[in-house]
Amino acid sequence: MSKWIEAAGAAVVAARAYAAAAQGRVAQVIAPGGRVDSALADREQRLVHGFAWIATTAEALAATHDWAQRGQAAGRFGELEELTLRVGFGEYLAQLLGGVPMSQNEFVRPGELGLAGAAAALAADPTVQTFLAEGNTAQTRLALATRLRAGEVPDESLDDETMDMIRDQFRVFTRNRIAPNAHAWHLADDLIPDEIVAEMAELGVFGVCIEEEFGGLGLGKLAMCLVSEELSRGWICAGSLGTRSEIAGELIGANGTPEQKANWLPRLASGEILPTAVFTEPDVGSDLASVRTRAVRQDDGSWTIKGAKNWITHAARADLMTVLCRTNPDVPGYGGLSMLLAAKTRRTDAEDFPDEGLFGSEIEVLGYRGMREYALSFEDFRVAGDGLLGGAEGQGFKQLMRTFEGARIQTAARAIGVGWNAFDLALRYATERKQFGTQLADFPRVTDKLAMMVTELVMARELTYSSARHKDKGERCDIEAGMAKLLGARVAWANADMCVQIHGGNGYALEYEASRVLCDARILNIFEGAGEIQAHVIGRGLAAAR
Amino acid sequence: MSKWIEAAGAAVVAARAYAAAAQGRVAQVIAPGGRVDSALADREQRLVHGFAWIATTAEALAATHDWAQRGQAAGRFGELEELTLRVGFGEYLAQLLGGVPMSQNEFVRPGELGLAGAAAALAADPTVQTFLAEGNTAQTRLALATRLRAGEVPDESLDDETMDMIRDQFRVFTRNRIAPNAHAWHLADDLIPDEIVAEMAELGVFGVCIEEEFGGLGLGKLAMCLVSEELSRGWICAGSLGTRSEIAGELIGANGTPEQKANWLPRLASGEILPTAVFTEPDVGSDLASVRTRAVRQDDGSWTIKGAKNWITHAARADLMTVLCRTNPDVPGYGGLSMLLAAKTRRTDAEDFPDEGLFGSEIEVLGYRGMREYALSFEDFRVAGDGLLGGAEGQGFKQLMRTFEGARIQTAARAIGVGWNAFDLALRYATERKQFGTQLADFPRVTDKLAMMVTELVMARELTYSSARHKDKGERCDIEAGMAKLLGARVAWANADMCVQIHGGNGYALEYEASRVLCDARILNIFEGAGEIQAHVIGRGLAAAR
Ligand SMILES: Cc1cc2nc3c(=O)[nH]c(=O)nc-3n(C[C@H](O)[C@H](O)[C@H](O)COP(=O)(O)OP(=O)(O)OC[C@H]3O[C@@H](n4cnc5c(N)ncnc54)[C@H](O)[C@@H]3O)c2cc1C
Ligand SMILES: Cc1cc2nc3c(=O)[nH]c(=O)nc-3n(C[C@H](O)[C@H](O)[C@H](O)COP(=O)(O)OP(=O)(O)OC[C@H]3O[C@@H](n4cnc5c(N)ncnc54)[C@H](O)[C@@H]3O)c2cc1C
Ligand SMILES: CC(C)(COP(=O)(O)OP(=O)(O)OC[C@H]1O[C@@H](n2cnc3c(N)ncnc32)[C@H](O)[C@@H]1OP(=O)(O)O)[C@@H](O)C(=O)NCCC(=O)NCCS
Ligand SMILES: CC(C)(COP(=O)(O)OP(=O)(O)OC[C@H]1O[C@@H](n2cnc3c(N)ncnc32)[C@H](O)[C@@H]1OP(=O)(O)O)[C@@H](O)C(=O)NCCC(=O)NCCS
Repeated sequence: MSKWIEAAGAAVVAARAYAAAAQGRVAQVIAPGGRVDSALADREQRLVHGFAWIATTAEALAATHDWAQRGQAAGRFGELEELTLRVGFGEYLAQLLGGVPMSQNEFVRPGELGLAGAAAALAADPTVQTFLAEGNTAQTRLALATRLRAGEVPDESLDDETMDMIRDQFRVFTRNRIAPNAHAWHLADDLIPDEIVAEMAELGVFGVCIEEEFGGLGLGKLAMCLVSEELSRGWICAGSLGTRSEIAGELIGANGTPEQKANWLPRLASGEILPTAVFTEPDVGSDLASVRTRAVRQDDGSWTIKGAKNWITHAARADLMTVLCRTNPDVPGYGGLSMLLAAKTRRTDAEDFPDEGLFGSEIEVLGYRGMREYALSFEDFRVAGDGLLGGAEGQGFKQLMRTFEGARIQTAARAIGVGWNAFDLALRYATERKQFGTQLADFPRVTDKLAMMVTELVMARELTYSSARHKDKGERCDIEAGMAKLLGARVAWANADMCVQIHGGNGYALEYEASRVLCDARILNIFEGAGEIQAHVIGRGLAAAR
Repeated sequence: MSKWIEAAGAAVVAARAYAAAAQGRVAQVIAPGGRVDSALADREQRLVHGFAWIATTAEALAATHDWAQRGQAAGRFGELEELTLRVGFGEYLAQLLGGVPMSQNEFVRPGELGLAGAAAALAADPTVQTFLAEGNTAQTRLALATRLRAGEVPDESLDDETMDMIRDQFRVFTRNRIAPNAHAWHLADDLIPDEIVAEMAELGVFGVCIEEEFGGLGLGKLAMCLVSEELSRGWICAGSLGTRSEIAGELIGANGTPEQKANWLPRLASGEILPTAVFTEPDVGSDLASVRTRAVRQDDGSWTIKGAKNWITHAARADLMTVLCRTNPDVPGYGGLSMLLAAKTRRTDAEDFPDEGLFGSEIEVLGYRGMREYALSFEDFRVAGDGLLGGAEGQGFKQLMRTFEGARIQTAARAIGVGWNAFDLALRYATERKQFGTQLADFPRVTDKLAMMVTELVMARELTYSSARHKDKGERCDIEAGMAKLLGARVAWANADMCVQIHGGNGYALEYEASRVLCDARILNIFEGAGEIQAHVIGRGLAAAR
């Protein structure tokens, strides 16, 4: 076995011990009696979130070590992989000791959590020392970047023919159908063309995780990650077209009545029906349990919806809404919420929202275009009597939270795709553009950026795949999903930022794709649960040692 | 004296000692024989640039300490100032030890420079230990943010009535005339209205540093910083309108013949004439010494220009071009370059570029709107015989490099203004928006961001003012100007990023100013010399111990 993989294994143990010390410290503060005290957790939020970031970093190391081991077992762990491992471990171990970036102006350091002792132990670990000294150095970054310039790519096989085939298939599709057009679609602020939607439907994009008996591919979240990642590598919108089908498919697949499944799933899977996810409201974003939109059962069993929703992606071209609404106003908080499956009429050339009682206006955005976002207003909008998901009132919030696990993993995969998009553009530009008589890619500051971009992509990707594998086992995995999304969003944003910087002035020009990728990447730390919400879920979840 | 100021003084000494150790190390590597070896410096770029960031961080600490001392002497060093000092020193000292962010994926840590010993000495300094333990803590950040929410602002007086008056005057102007309209102008991609330009001219914006005998205000760079900062706090474009006049004014004021001064300066100062800075070319950005645009002297003494320029801000509405061009093709590099003062015709409603031999097309951009950027093509464009700056050939590059010092200080001030704009918007939103039943500003992750935003603004601002004072003494100060620009650009970008994050989804909506500030802030690390170029100037300059 490569001595570096062995060292990585030991370093993971040390990093996890450090994270465990952080967990102990956090539990001590916010769960003094054994159970998490919410008020304490809120007051000590930086502690809880800092710990979440530490744990995420440690798990990214663990996932990267697993990747290296699998690659080694399959004879794919070569020099490039070794360099990636070294740079990645060198960097993330140094972050644990010197400061993990939670954002551009918040770093969590051992002192903040009173972890001087645990940090000293981590720093004293001989394998950690090796990585700090010989992991992320000018030499390893240069060697790594040199191989990247030569067109090499760190091992991305999944030891599974089907999976590898899926990646290839979507890579080819993206290269041919998405990448050449994405930027023009973005600039024109167009809806992604119907014909592309149809081609993606053909490929099964909308039914990856829907069971085969309902016309889906019957694959798991890992496959969904590959699809999302590869499509997003051409354009975040391409990787996001399936997001709402994934959400609706899982909501219905996991919670629907047999009739609801039979009615909706096949048409979702085939792409005949496009759904939209209707949760957020003008005054309710992160705190979804406070949703106010009211649904009232009518005498005929049907429902009417009243209220305002906000930020609803792809609402106009959708045929089905999954609406989180309050069916019982007497139960405050999440207990009064239900999920309605509400049929709607797709936009026509004449009208965006042809239905009675449903009005919408577009919200213009920086990036993430191609589907359009809307503010919706429901004025006694009618939903059929069989629209209550699972026929069960008061279950909407938990149905959704379980579904968000998959959605967040999918978002992490989108982030990885966007991060690769940034890398691809940056590498190309760095080898095409010359300055001071030489390729940009000859400057250490440029190669450093490129090397770190790929290294972090591999680490965030492997953490994402690991969360997908958890989910595929049927385990609750909001913590794992949260970690993947948290890190993925940071890496995508950093990569997009570096891509622009490598482009110099041209990165600021609308004409260059770099400027789009910057705008696209910025959404990832906001939607599907902002970064602070993921940190909350991870930190509290782990501190409760659920 | 506050015990914290005293501690800060000692910590500055320790931080500078650490920076000196880094300098020693870098000099050892890139100047083994005493003189900097360029090839070595390029190969060891990360070392050189890492050192530049370390030195910049140390100087930001020093400038902040000076600020505290001046405030204390004038009786203005209160609790808020003390908190700012503590948080700032806690953070930047921790960065020196744990990793200074050079970008989102490049951190310079002691190990990279082989500075374990010097770092240990820094960490062992008792005042440093105090700041690490009690400087940037959850408590101090909260206390700081609480005062910010109450409307308090850390001391911004300059102990000079004129300066304080200038700040007030431009703050009022910005509040009344810029801030209410900036976003609409940005969204419409309009030129900033002529009437606003006229009002700014009235205020003296275009002649701040031009001598009184030529109709300017005859003030120094410090005043120019205040003007730029306050205007940029409403919109980067407002703070940038004067940039080109500042550049042209200094080029001509410092290098022009008596006739050139008499001809151009009064009209520049009054704003009657708007200049444009014509340096960059499609293939020449960072490496300005390689400019290719040719100017050829004609028999009648006039010049013709041939070539392509790129990224020329405000070119259409300008009346005067300062053109860097090659007058002697036999001298490669900077020696063959001269600066021409080229009159042009301002755009009309019918035509953007009415002159013969001058063609332009707009480059659309993410932000920094209001003046428009152009690609220019010169096809035997005529310049009058008296157009050679100072009547001296071959001096263009050095004339420009000296001028860039002021321009970079001005850019740093713009960055500070943009960073304040981000903070103002974020604070307002955080107190207006509620979630989970409470103001966003009640969440520690939000207050942490707000506290750090202001702290870093004060530090970067004081570093900027310090560089302006250097320049006002007439000293060469490309190192100081580079430091101010380097840090200012990072802080503005981080602040804009945090502003968007605090806005959640709304930060991503074009309707909200947060989205504009993000786009505006991104330019600062690219133009007027990209971050990597500033690090190069600082690192090499200091290593050569000029
Ligand atoms: C382009 C786009 C597309 C979207 N698509 C959809 C969609 O299709 N369907 C849908 O339902 N929604 C959608 N959303 C909404 C998205 O999910 C929300 O924007 C997101 O959940 C955040 O909510 P918010 O915007 O209300 O921010 P807020 O909840 O107001 O949060 C603002 C800031 O405060 C922080 N914050 C909030 N609470 C806390 C806390 N307790 N502790 C610390 N910090 C906190 C947040 O992290 C954030 O930084 C979309 C949003 C965007 C921008
Ligand atoms: C909105 C806008 C307005 C502008 N206005 C003007 C104007 O009015 N007049 C004008 O003349 N110019 C203007 N510019 C041009 C601006 O000054 C250049 O974009 C800037 O100098 C960078 O040059 P470049 O874009 O060619 O990038 P490049 O020089 O190609 O650099 C690309 C990347 O490589 C890095 N790099 C380059 N050399 C090195 C090295 N040796 N070591 C390490 N890294 C290196 C850079 O730091 C950058 O990250 C403007 C640009 C923009 C975007
Ligand atoms: C903040 C947030 C995590 C919920 O916080 P909260 O209101 O404090 O809710 P809790 O974490 O206490 O959870 C409420 C209940 O749901 C359960 N739950 C939460 N997540 C769950 C999951 N993934 N699986 C199963 N149950 C879950 C909890 O166990 C709890 O059950 P209990 O009351 O029986 O113990 C949630 O509102 C959220 O994810 N917000 C972000 C919104 C978002 O992602 N929007 C994207 C729209 S596209
Ligand atoms: C990269 C850059 C710093 C110059 O690097 P370079 O080509 O290696 O040039 P040098 O640093 O060797 O400088 C060349 C000469 O100018 C001199 N010089 C440089 N800066 C100077 C200053 N601020 N004051 C006085 N002289 C200066 C040097 O001392 C040197 O003189 P010498 O040859 O007599 O020793 C310069 O091209 C630059 O600033 N690029 C960024 C472009 C930019 O900011 N564009 C914005 C357009 S709006």
